[in-house]
Amino acid sequence: MKALLIVAHGSRREESNVEVRKIATQLRQCSTDQYHIVRAAFLELADPLIPEGIKQCIDDGATSVIVLPYFLNSGRHVVEDIPRIVAQTRQGYPGIEIGVAPHLGASALMMDLLIATANTSR
Amino acid sequence: MKALLIVAHGSRREESNVEVRKIATQLRQCSTDQYHIVRAAFLELADPLIPEGIKQCIDDGATSVIVLPYFLNSGRHVVEDIPRIVAQTRQGYPGIEIGVAPHLGASALMMDLLIATANTSR
Repeated sequence: MKALLIVAHGSRREESNVEVRKIATQLRQCSTDQYHIVRAAFLELADPLIPEGIKQCIDDGATSVIVLPYFLNSGRHVVEDIPRIVAQTRQGYPGIEIGVAPHLGASALMMDLLIATANTSR
Repeated sequence: MKALLIVAHGSRREESNVEVRKIATQLRQCSTDQYHIVRAAFLELADPLIPEGIKQCIDDGATSVIVLPYFLNSGRHVVEDIPRIVAQTRQGYPGIEIGVAPHLGASALMMDLLIATANTSR
Protein backbone atom coordinates (compact mmCIF):
# COMPACT_ATOMS: atom_id res chain seq x y z
CA MET A 1 0.00 0.00 0.00
CA LYS A 2 1.51 3.32 -1.13
CA ALA A 3 1.38 6.48 0.97
CA LEU A 4 2.06 10.08 0.01
CA LEU A 5 3.22 12.43 2.77
CA ILE A 6 3.07 16.11 1.83
CA VAL A 7 5.64 18.01 3.88
CA ALA A 8 5.24 21.77 4.25
CA HIS A 9 7.41 24.13 6.29
CA GLY A 10 4.82 24.73 8.99
CA SER A 11 3.63 28.17 10.05
CA ARG A 12 2.86 30.08 13.24
CA ARG A 13 -0.29 31.08 11.37
CA GLU A 14 -2.54 28.07 11.91
CA GLU A 15 -4.66 28.84 8.79
CA SER A 16 -1.62 28.05 6.63
CA ASN A 17 -1.20 24.66 8.29
CA VAL A 18 -4.92 23.99 7.81
CA GLU A 19 -4.54 24.77 4.08
CA VAL A 20 -1.82 22.14 3.78
CA ARG A 21 -3.92 19.53 5.60
CA LYS A 22 -6.85 20.39 3.28
CA ILE A 23 -4.66 19.79 0.24
CA ALA A 24 -3.80 16.34 1.62
CA THR A 25 -7.51 15.65 2.08
CA GLN A 26 -8.33 16.79 -1.47
CA LEU A 27 -5.49 14.72 -2.86
CA ARG A 28 -6.69 11.66 -0.94
CA GLN A 29 -10.05 12.01 -2.65
CA CYS A 30 -8.66 12.30 -6.17
CA SER A 31 -5.73 9.87 -6.19
CA THR A 32 -7.02 6.73 -4.48
CA ASP A 33 -5.86 4.60 -7.41
CA GLN A 34 -2.20 5.64 -6.99
CA TYR A 35 -1.86 6.54 -3.31
CA HIS A 36 -4.09 4.80 -0.82
CA ILE A 37 -2.93 7.00 2.03
CA VAL A 38 -2.31 10.75 1.77
CA ARG A 39 -1.23 12.72 4.84
CA ALA A 40 0.38 16.05 5.66
CA ALA A 41 3.36 16.70 7.93
CA PHE A 42 5.56 19.68 8.77
CA LEU A 43 9.26 20.45 9.00
CA GLU A 44 8.66 22.59 12.10
CA LEU A 45 6.12 24.75 13.95
CA ALA A 46 3.11 22.45 13.33
CA ASP A 47 2.00 18.88 13.97
CA PRO A 48 2.70 16.21 12.98
CA LEU A 49 6.42 16.57 12.37
CA ILE A 50 7.96 14.43 9.59
CA PRO A 51 8.90 11.33 11.70
CA GLU A 52 5.41 11.23 13.23
CA GLY A 53 3.81 11.72 9.78
CA ILE A 54 5.80 8.78 8.40
CA LYS A 55 4.80 6.68 11.43
CA GLN A 56 1.13 7.54 10.87
CA CYS A 57 1.35 6.37 7.24
CA ILE A 58 2.95 3.09 8.34
CA ASP A 59 0.38 2.64 11.13
CA ASP A 60 -2.28 3.08 8.40
CA GLY A 61 -0.73 0.11 6.59
CA ALA A 62 1.68 1.77 4.15
CA THR A 63 4.43 -0.46 2.74
CA SER A 64 5.99 2.46 0.86
CA VAL A 65 5.95 6.18 1.65
CA ILE A 66 6.81 9.04 -0.69
CA VAL A 67 7.68 12.27 1.09
CA LEU A 68 6.73 15.23 -1.13
CA PRO A 69 8.27 18.60 -0.16
CA TYR A 70 5.56 21.24 -0.57
CA PHE A 71 8.11 23.95 -1.36
CA LEU A 72 8.59 26.16 -4.41
CA ASN A 73 12.34 26.71 -4.04
CA SER A 74 15.23 24.35 -3.45
CA GLY A 75 16.51 26.01 -0.29
CA ARG A 76 18.30 24.38 2.63
CA HIS A 77 15.05 22.83 3.89
CA VAL A 78 14.56 20.91 0.63
CA VAL A 79 18.20 20.10 -0.07
CA GLU A 80 19.38 19.25 3.46
CA ASP A 81 16.79 19.21 6.23
CA ILE A 82 14.01 17.05 4.75
CA PRO A 83 16.36 14.37 3.26
CA ARG A 84 18.29 14.22 6.57
CA ILE A 85 15.15 13.76 8.69
CA VAL A 86 13.77 11.16 6.26
CA ALA A 87 17.09 9.25 6.27
CA GLN A 88 17.10 9.17 10.08
CA THR A 89 13.46 8.05 10.24
CA ARG A 90 14.01 5.38 7.56
CA GLN A 91 16.42 3.53 9.90
CA GLY A 92 13.52 2.73 12.21
CA TYR A 93 11.52 1.00 9.45
CA PRO A 94 13.85 -1.41 7.60
CA GLY A 95 11.02 -3.16 5.69
CA ILE A 96 9.43 0.02 4.35
CA GLU A 97 10.50 1.91 1.24
CA ILE A 98 10.65 5.64 2.05
CA GLY A 99 11.53 8.03 -0.80
CA VAL A 100 11.73 11.78 -1.24
CA ALA A 101 10.18 13.48 -4.28
CA PRO A 102 11.63 16.65 -5.83
CA HIS A 103 10.18 19.96 -4.64
CA LEU A 104 7.26 21.36 -6.64
CA GLY A 105 9.22 24.13 -8.32
CA ALA A 106 11.28 21.47 -10.13
CA SER A 107 8.30 20.00 -11.99
CA ALA A 108 7.74 20.57 -15.71
CA LEU A 109 4.02 20.82 -14.92
CA MET A 110 4.77 24.01 -12.94
CA MET A 111 4.69 25.94 -16.23
CA ASP A 112 1.14 24.72 -16.94
CA LEU A 113 0.10 25.58 -13.39
CA LEU A 114 1.49 29.11 -13.69
CA ILE A 115 -0.31 29.78 -16.97
CA ALA A 116 -3.57 28.25 -15.73
CA THR A 117 -3.42 30.32 -12.54
CA ALA A 118 -2.61 33.53 -14.43
CA ASN A 119 -5.65 32.91 -16.64
CA THR A 120 -7.95 32.97 -13.63
CA SER A 121 -6.74 36.41 -12.49
CA ARG A 122 -9.25 38.80 -11.04
CA MET B 1 0.45 43.30 -25.33
CA LYS B 2 -0.03 41.12 -22.25
CA ALA B 3 2.60 40.74 -19.53
CA LEU B 4 2.87 38.20 -16.74
CA LEU B 5 4.80 39.27 -13.63
CA ILE B 6 5.67 36.38 -11.30
CA VAL B 7 6.02 37.72 -7.76
CA ALA B 8 7.94 35.64 -5.22
CA HIS B 9 8.74 36.56 -1.64
CA GLY B 10 12.44 37.14 -2.23
CA SER B 11 15.20 35.46 -0.26
CA ARG B 12 18.50 36.35 1.38
CA ARG B 13 19.76 33.22 -0.39
CA GLU B 14 20.44 34.52 -3.89
CA GLU B 15 20.10 31.03 -5.48
CA SER B 16 16.39 31.09 -4.59
CA ASN B 17 15.91 34.42 -6.37
CA VAL B 18 17.79 33.07 -9.37
CA GLU B 19 15.41 30.07 -9.47
CA VAL B 20 12.44 32.42 -9.67
CA ARG B 21 14.01 34.44 -12.48
CA LYS B 22 14.75 31.16 -14.31
CA ILE B 23 11.09 30.17 -14.05
CA ALA B 24 10.13 33.50 -15.65
CA THR B 25 12.62 32.82 -18.46
CA GLN B 26 11.27 29.28 -19.02
CA LEU B 27 7.72 30.58 -19.01
CA ARG B 28 8.61 33.29 -21.52
CA GLN B 29 9.84 30.59 -23.87
CA CYS B 30 6.74 28.41 -23.61
CA SER B 31 3.87 30.91 -23.44
CA THR B 32 4.67 33.49 -26.14
CA ASP B 33 1.18 33.07 -27.61
CA GLN B 34 -0.54 34.15 -24.38
CA TYR B 35 1.97 36.40 -22.62
CA HIS B 36 4.41 38.36 -24.74
CA ILE B 37 6.32 39.56 -21.71
CA VAL B 38 7.16 37.43 -18.67
CA ARG B 39 9.17 38.88 -15.82
CA ALA B 40 9.92 38.15 -12.17
CA ALA B 41 9.68 40.53 -9.21
CA PHE B 42 9.91 40.23 -5.43
CA LEU B 43 7.91 41.35 -2.42
CA GLU B 44 11.11 42.09 -0.51
CA LEU B 45 14.82 41.20 -0.16
CA ALA B 46 15.53 40.96 -3.92
CA ASP B 47 15.33 43.08 -7.06
CA PRO B 48 13.23 44.19 -8.77
CA LEU B 49 10.51 44.95 -6.24
CA ILE B 50 6.89 44.80 -7.45
CA PRO B 51 6.49 48.46 -8.55
CA GLU B 52 9.74 48.29 -10.52
CA GLY B 53 8.71 44.93 -12.05
CA ILE B 54 5.41 46.42 -13.22
CA LYS B 55 7.25 49.44 -14.63
CA GLN B 56 9.63 47.15 -16.55
CA CYS B 57 6.67 45.30 -18.13
CA ILE B 58 5.12 48.61 -19.19
CA ASP B 59 8.46 49.88 -20.51
CA ASP B 60 8.59 46.68 -22.58
CA GLY B 61 5.27 47.69 -24.13
CA ALA B 62 2.70 45.88 -21.97
CA THR B 63 -0.85 47.20 -22.13
CA SER B 64 -2.01 44.75 -19.46
CA VAL B 65 -0.08 43.13 -16.61
CA ILE B 66 -1.10 40.11 -14.56
CA VAL B 67 0.69 39.83 -11.24
CA LEU B 68 0.98 36.16 -10.26
CA PRO B 69 1.88 35.49 -6.60
CA TYR B 70 4.39 32.61 -6.56
CA PHE B 71 3.21 31.44 -3.13
CA LEU B 72 1.75 28.13 -1.96
CA ASN B 73 -0.24 29.48 0.98
CA SER B 74 -2.65 32.38 1.30
CA GLY B 75 -0.82 34.18 4.08
CA ARG B 76 -0.72 37.90 4.77
CA HIS B 77 1.65 38.48 1.84
CA VAL B 78 -0.87 37.07 -0.64
CA VAL B 79 -4.03 38.43 0.98
CA GLU B 80 -2.82 41.90 1.96
CA ASP B 81 0.68 42.94 0.92
CA ILE B 82 0.72 42.08 -2.79
CA PRO B 83 -2.79 43.45 -3.56
CA ARG B 84 -1.96 46.66 -1.62
CA ILE B 85 1.31 47.26 -3.48
CA VAL B 86 -0.34 46.50 -6.83
CA ALA B 87 -3.24 48.87 -6.04
CA GLN B 88 -0.79 51.67 -5.18
CA THR B 89 1.29 51.06 -8.31
CA ARG B 90 -1.83 50.89 -10.51
CA GLN B 91 -2.58 54.55 -9.72
CA GLY B 92 0.55 55.59 -11.61
CA TYR B 93 -0.59 53.87 -14.83
CA PRO B 94 -4.23 54.83 -15.50
CA GLY B 95 -4.28 53.42 -19.06
CA ILE B 96 -2.91 49.99 -18.13
CA GLU B 97 -4.94 47.05 -16.84
CA ILE B 98 -3.11 45.52 -13.85
CA GLY B 99 -4.66 42.41 -12.26
CA VAL B 100 -3.67 39.99 -9.53
CA ALA B 101 -3.98 36.22 -10.05
CA PRO B 102 -4.76 33.81 -7.17
CA HIS B 103 -1.78 32.18 -5.45
CA LEU B 104 -0.64 28.83 -6.83
CA GLY B 105 -1.98 26.73 -3.96
CA ALA B 106 -5.51 27.77 -4.97
CA SER B 107 -5.33 26.16 -8.42
CA ALA B 108 -7.16 22.93 -9.27
CA LEU B 109 -4.11 21.95 -11.32
CA MET B 110 -2.11 21.81 -8.07
CA MET B 111 -3.47 18.28 -7.50
CA ASP B 112 -2.05 17.15 -10.87
CA LEU B 113 1.26 18.81 -10.08
CA LEU B 114 1.49 17.07 -6.70
CA ILE B 115 0.81 13.62 -8.16
CA ALA B 116 3.19 14.18 -11.09
CA THR B 117 5.94 15.34 -8.75
CA ALA B 118 5.39 12.42 -6.38
CA ASN B 119 5.70 10.03 -9.32
CA THR B 120 9.21 11.30 -10.05
CA SER B 121 10.46 10.58 -6.52
CA ARG B 122 13.97 9.28 -6.09
